[in-house]
This record gives sequence, C-alpha cells and structure tokens, in this order.
Amino acid sequence: MEITPRILKGFRDFLPSGEIRRKQLIRILEDQFHAFGFVPIDTPMLEYAQVLLGKGGGETDKQVYRFEDHGGRDVALRFDLTVPFARYMAMHRNELYLPFKRFHISKVFRGENTQRGRYREFTQCDFDIVGTETLSSDLEIVLMIVSAFEALRVPGVTVHLSHRGVFNRFLRHHGAQDRGEEVLRVVDKLRKVGREATLEALTELTSREVAEKALAFIGAQGTYGEILTTIEDLSGGPGPESARLRELGAALEQLVPAGTVLLDPSITRGLDYYTGVVFETFIKGAENIGSVCSGGRYDDLVALYSRESMPGVGASIGLDRLLAALEELDVGTGEPAAVDLLITMQDTELTAHYHELARTFRAAGLRVEVFPEQQKLGRQFAFAERKGIPLALVCGAEEKASGTVNLRILADRENRENLKPEEARQLAVQLIRNPEK
Amino acid sequence: MEITPRILKGFRDFLPSGEIRRKQLIRILEDQFHAFGFVPIDTPMLEYAQVLLGKGGGETDKQVYRFEDHGGRDVALRFDLTVPFARYMAMHRNELYLPFKRFHISKVFRGENTQRGRYREFTQCDFDIVGTETLSSDLEIVLMIVSAFEALRVPGVTVHLSHRGVFNRFLRHHGAQDRGEEVLRVVDKLRKVGREATLEALTELTSREVAEKALAFIGAQGTYGEILTTIEDLSGGPGPESARLRELGAALEQLVPAGTVLLDPSITRGLDYYTGVVFETFIKGAENIGSVCSGGRYDDLVALYSRESMPGVGASIGLDRLLAALEELDVGTGEPAAVDLLITMQDTELTAHYHELARTFRAAGLRVEVFPEQQKLGRQFAFAERKGIPLALVCGAEEKASGTVNLRILADRENRENLKPEEARQLAVQLIRNPEK
Repeated sequence: MEITPRILKGFRDFLPSGEIRRKQLIRILEDQFHAFGFVPIDTPMLEYAQVLLGKGGGETDKQVYRFEDHGGRDVALRFDLTVPFARYMAMHRNELYLPFKRFHISKVFRGENTQRGRYREFTQCDFDIVGTETLSSDLEIVLMIVSAFEALRVPGVTVHLSHRGVFNRFLRHHGAQDRGEEVLRVVDKLRKVGREATLEALTELTSREVAEKALAFIGAQGTYGEILTTIEDLSGGPGPESARLRELGAALEQLVPAGTVLLDPSITRGLDYYTGVVFETFIKGAENIGSVCSGGRYDDLVALYSRESMPGVGASIGLDRLLAALEELDVGTGEPAAVDLLITMQDTELTAHYHELARTFRAAGLRVEVFPEQQKLGRQFAFAERKGIPLALVCGAEEKASGTVNLRILADRENRENLKPEEARQLAVQLIRNPEK
Repeated sequence: MEITPRILKGFRDFLPSGEIRRKQLIRILEDQFHAFGFVPIDTPMLEYAQVLLGKGGGETDKQVYRFEDHGGRDVALRFDLTVPFARYMAMHRNELYLPFKRFHISKVFRGENTQRGRYREFTQCDFDIVGTETLSSDLEIVLMIVSAFEALRVPGVTVHLSHRGVFNRFLRHHGAQDRGEEVLRVVDKLRKVGREATLEALTELTSREVAEKALAFIGAQGTYGEILTTIEDLSGGPGPESARLRELGAALEQLVPAGTVLLDPSITRGLDYYTGVVFETFIKGAENIGSVCSGGRYDDLVALYSRESMPGVGASIGLDRLLAALEELDVGTGEPAAVDLLITMQDTELTAHYHELARTFRAAGLRVEVFPEQQKLGRQFAFAERKGIPLALVCGAEEKASGTVNLRILADRENRENLKPEEARQLAVQLIRNPEK
C-alpha cells in the first residue's frame, strides 16, 4: 500500500524558485550584518521546555510544540530566537566579548491558527547589540535596518520610532503607572478598533481626562521636533528618555535621507519587555502588509537565567512577510536563472567531452549544466527554457572532430555556429554579464 | 527563582567563530552546486510520522523524535533529507522538470546514543540527480564531489567506487542471492572485524568456497582495469553493471587527476536501498575520520508514495564530520576575522560622525564596527583584539576639527596619524586586501 505524500498544515515545501530567492535574500542580509560587525550564532531547535517557557503559563505556551523525549525529558521546539539568545548569553557570557553584536537567521515553530494566514514553521532574522545602553547602539540598530533594506533594493522604508520610557513617564505623571500594561494593550489596538473605542477603553482604565491626554500623546502631529515637544510636555517636561529621542533624531537627520525616520508615539510594541526606544519599519508602497522589522531597547536580556543584568537593543525581520512584500512590489522577481548554460547531449559517446567542456565554462565563472540523456534537441531546449537557462551549447561528433561548438541563444531562437570553444566561452560570458547587448 | 541555563545532551550552541566557519563552508558548497546546475529546495522540519517512517518498525524508529501535536496528529522531526525528498518528488513532480537536480543543506534529528560522540541535531548536505539512469549522471555526481572538495581547499580526496549490481550478480552467480542482505551486512563490517571473522560469518551464510570468493571479490587488487576484470570474472563474466563501471572509469580518467578515483569492491554501502554505483569519499591525510561524502545510485526514490518509479543517483556530505576534518588538517583555520576595522569612540558627542565615517569605509567594501561606548582607548583596542579586528580608527574632537583621523594597526602596535579620511580608507583597504605588505 502506498502512503499519501502530504505535509502538515502551516508547514511548507519550497520549490527551487522560491528557495533560490529566500537564500539570495538571506545572503544579502548576512553580508550587511557583517559589514556592521554583527556576527552569527546558532542554537538548538529543541530545548528544555523549562528553559524556553520559564515558569510557563500564558498565550505563548499553548502554541508551543512541547513533548517528552526518549529520555523522559520535557522538551520544546523554539518559538522565537530571543529566548534562546537570552539563555545563550547567560551560558556563554565568559566566552564572548561585550558589547556583543549577534545576528541569527533560522526557523521557529508555533502551533498557531493557520486560518489567519500564519505559518507554523517560519524564518526569523534577529539582530541585537547587548551589554551597552549608549546612544550609539540605538542609532546603529536603526542605521542597520535602513542599510539592510537599501541593500535589498526596496523602494525605501520608513522607520517609526518612539520610546517606551517617555510613555511610562506620561503614565506616572498622571498616576496611571499601575495600569501601564493594560493601557499599552489598548493603545496597541488603536489602528484596529478606532479612536472612539480606544477612548472608551482608556477612560475605563483611567479617567476621561487622562484618556484624552493619552490619545493626544499617541496621536501627536508635526515634525520630529514638534512631536517630541508635545509628548515631553504631556509627560511632565524633559527627562533622560526624551533627551535620548532628541539626540537620536539629530544623529539620524545627519545620517539617513529625510523622511526615513518618523517620531510616532503610537508605536508602543505591546509587550512589557521593552524599556527604551521602540520601532517598526514599513516599506514604502507596501505599508498594508505591516511592519517588516520591529524591535527596541530592553533593560535585561538574561533576567530569567542570571542575576547579572544585560541591557540591549535589537530588531527582528519577519522574512516571510518581507518576501511577500518584495513579491508584491515586484522587486527583483521573475524566475531567477539558476543556470547560465545547458550543454546538450547529442551523443552519449561524447559524455566525457561534454563534462570537460562544462569544466572550462565553469572556470570562466558560468553555472553550467550537462543534460544527462541523449534526447531530441528540441526537448533539451524545452528543458532549458523550463528551468530558465538562457544559453545552450550543441556539439556532435562532427563538431568535436573539427574542434568547434554551436551556441544557441534560446530567447532569440538564434544559433552561433562553428565557434571555437574559447570563442563560445567569451560570447557566453558576454551574453550572461551584459544581457541587453 | 532563576532557571539554570542549559541545553540538551547531543545538541549544540555555536559560538561566532564556529558559526562563521560553518556558514563559509556552506556558501562554498552552495556556489559549487549552482555551478553544476543543482538547485536548492527546502522541506519542513516536522512531518506526519507515517510519511517519514512508512510502515514503521526497525532501528531508525527508536531514534526518531515523534510526538502528538496540538491537533492530535502523529508527527516527527525529520531524521534525514532523503525521505522528505522522496515525499517532495512524489508531491511536486508535475511542478518540476526532469531530470531534476537538487541540493538540500539543513538540520536533521536523531535521538542517538551520544556516548559514541554523535550529535542528536546535525547538518546534512544532500545532492541528487533524479529521473535519469545515464552514465552522465553517475559521472556528474563524482565530478561534483571532486569539485566541491577542491573548492574547500582540502589537500585532495579519494573517491572509492563500486557497483552494487556487480556484487548482486556475483551473489546470483553463486546461488547466494537469497542471503544478499545478510552477506552485505557482514561484508560491510570487514574493516572492523577483520578477514578471519568475516570469512567465518560468510561461510555460515553460504559455503566455504563462496565465502572465499566473496573475500577475493571485495579484496581485489590492482589497477582500476585489473580490479574490474577480477570482479567481472568472479561474477560470471561481463554484464551491463561492469560495463557502466568501465565507461565511468574511462571518463573519470579523462576528467580528474590520477589517483582521485579508485575502484574498491569492498564499498557496498550496507543498506538495501542502492542498486547501482556506490561510493565513499576520503580526505587525503584524514582517512581516519571515515567517509565525508557517500552515496550511490538507486532504482526508485518514490516507491513509498507513488506507483511511477523515479531512478536517481545522489550523495550526502556529513557537514559536522567535514568541519572536524578541516580543523584536523588545519585548512583555513585560525579565527576568521569577522570585522576589518573598529572605529573607536573617543567622544560620545561625535557619535554621528563615527557612524558617518563607518558608512564611507563600508562603501569601500570594508566591514566596520563602531564601538558604542566611550571607554579608555586601551580597552577598546583590547576589545578589537579579542574579536580579531586588525585595524582601529581613532578620531577625537581635535582630529574632527582638522578633518583627519588616526589609523592603528593593532598587530604591529603601530599608528598612522593625521590621515585624511580618504587616505585612511585607501590604506585600510590595502592592509586588509594585502595583509603581507
């Protein structure tokens, strides 16, 4: 009896075209991270459940793939890259140098409801600077984001910036610090539920007056400086948090194109985790898909595992969402050519000759495939077109005897005949490197 | 209460130095695969247990991480990349072109006994050509192996080649085809248990005469051609299987350096799976660590999932074993420099200036880190040395005012002072690209 080949809901196979794109994207990001001095790490997919979940409970737990292994250990698949990073820093602190800058691109698992279009296995790309609280590191994370998206050739990004500390100051100033978490949760849904419903929910949590001020805070309008002054005033005057936002704004004005960074007090990043700057990143022309890179500053990464504290700032790119955005924007799409040249098989007797030719074309920097079967030439050309290979080389016994080859430019249905292999190589390189000529 | 940070036995954290090396290795392999027209795919880490394990039973099952998910599904972490590839080809055959050449580099999971130095999470690198039975595809897999290891700059490899079909023919010729699997299992342990014990075990399975002939077969000595003639004679004369070995040998003689490929009838690759050529690959000078790339030809990849058959030939590189071998051979080791230049922080007031300098050095192709805190210069230099950064840039308020910077070559404790930023960039690029000057 055969077994029906199928995969789990929320999990995906990647066909070559999609996987080539994903790998290209990851290489570009990796090169950018290296250019800024971030280094890669890796951690296990599977860990002790207690280490990943802490004391447990809450929404996350229900989504975690958790089970008992052969040795009776309570284990779980990682559901993000932040918790393993915290555990990693607590364990390896003495083998590393601080400030430590790492990136980590890998898969995580969440048993989410797939009806919302979510995947249960997806790729995260996290980067953090830990062991320092300086302006320079806040600045660098933002520059890293801008630079990464530049390298990906998106039409441009807008980084929406805010500071959790200024908002906390606002809450304290109005005696609402006890309801902080609940207020944040309500504010976070403003765009979804609208102004009126938010005002009502906030009034219930605090008072009508504070609720209105909170909405004035998160809806502040104007230039970076004007907005900053508004939220500073609403939170009882200047403080170190607003000073950081001011310095950061001034540095970014020097370093990134105008309009790249916006002060947006509505960004709060729901979770209690963040304590300093927070940000979300939107691609120009694809704002509808939401933030493609979010993060912020936190007080202590390793609190769960160690008494020494470790502040940091970091961000996370949702690779799946980003790929969707790039596709929507038609950035660098079209089936990426995986191979430059197909050496057709005219005569199996010449198998070694074809592979020798392939070697010399590869030495010239081309990606070369040898068709393994002697089939009709038309079928071999069709294979090349199916795989997106632009050039084909044809060589039979006669050509071999006369030391020549024929090159076919598939898109043009055009042949260049009786070329010396060296001429064919030069022509192929030229056609691949300058396809418009 | 804190939670003790720890990881599961058989699982590993990767520190930056190790992870950088692993990623470099993978890039080199990926580029080589692309050069030969192999394309990447990916499949889920987690699949239906039935799909991965078939009708189940056997040694593999005990090692599989298998559990019930939230939806009550019987699921398992993949334990190799071959079974998912078979399932993938059965599902996606109509979306792909045949012959199909794929590579897949990813993690797999086995709850093995860690006392034997095995990992429970490790990286496999598989490449296969499916949908064709030709000489060209057998040849190409061997060329791919030789080329991949050349690109990794190992001192050289020896590919030990044999053909399961010739051995099966030998067994049939001596009426021992029914004991085929058991004979293969015994033969596979020859190197471990020695000639005498093997002879005894084979005699029990067959007869003294056949056992001696079997040992003559697997121990055949001489040139490629001589060995081929010996095993041909022992298996009742020429057949299509020995003809394939002969053609393959002739083609390889033309295409790879002498001594790269050996005919070695002791290679049988235990499992019943293979039906044609089989091979193992040893690194010259590190033969003791065993085969770093093994594989062979099989009749039908998708038998479990589909009635249409799909022949193929493939190989698998054990990435962990390979990394160990490269380390042992001291190939390209030494902490890889992750960053070229550290811009030290002399004055936090100049934060934006440092990041602007960093941008211009990055534009010149360098990997540049800005130290985020104003610490004593000596400590910043020490940080650079710890991270393996060879150059440091020093710029205080005075230098900024005069439009200059100082460059420090850390290994030499040497400073080049009062350089224009453009001069410093040229010098840094020169020092990084030609470190010996």
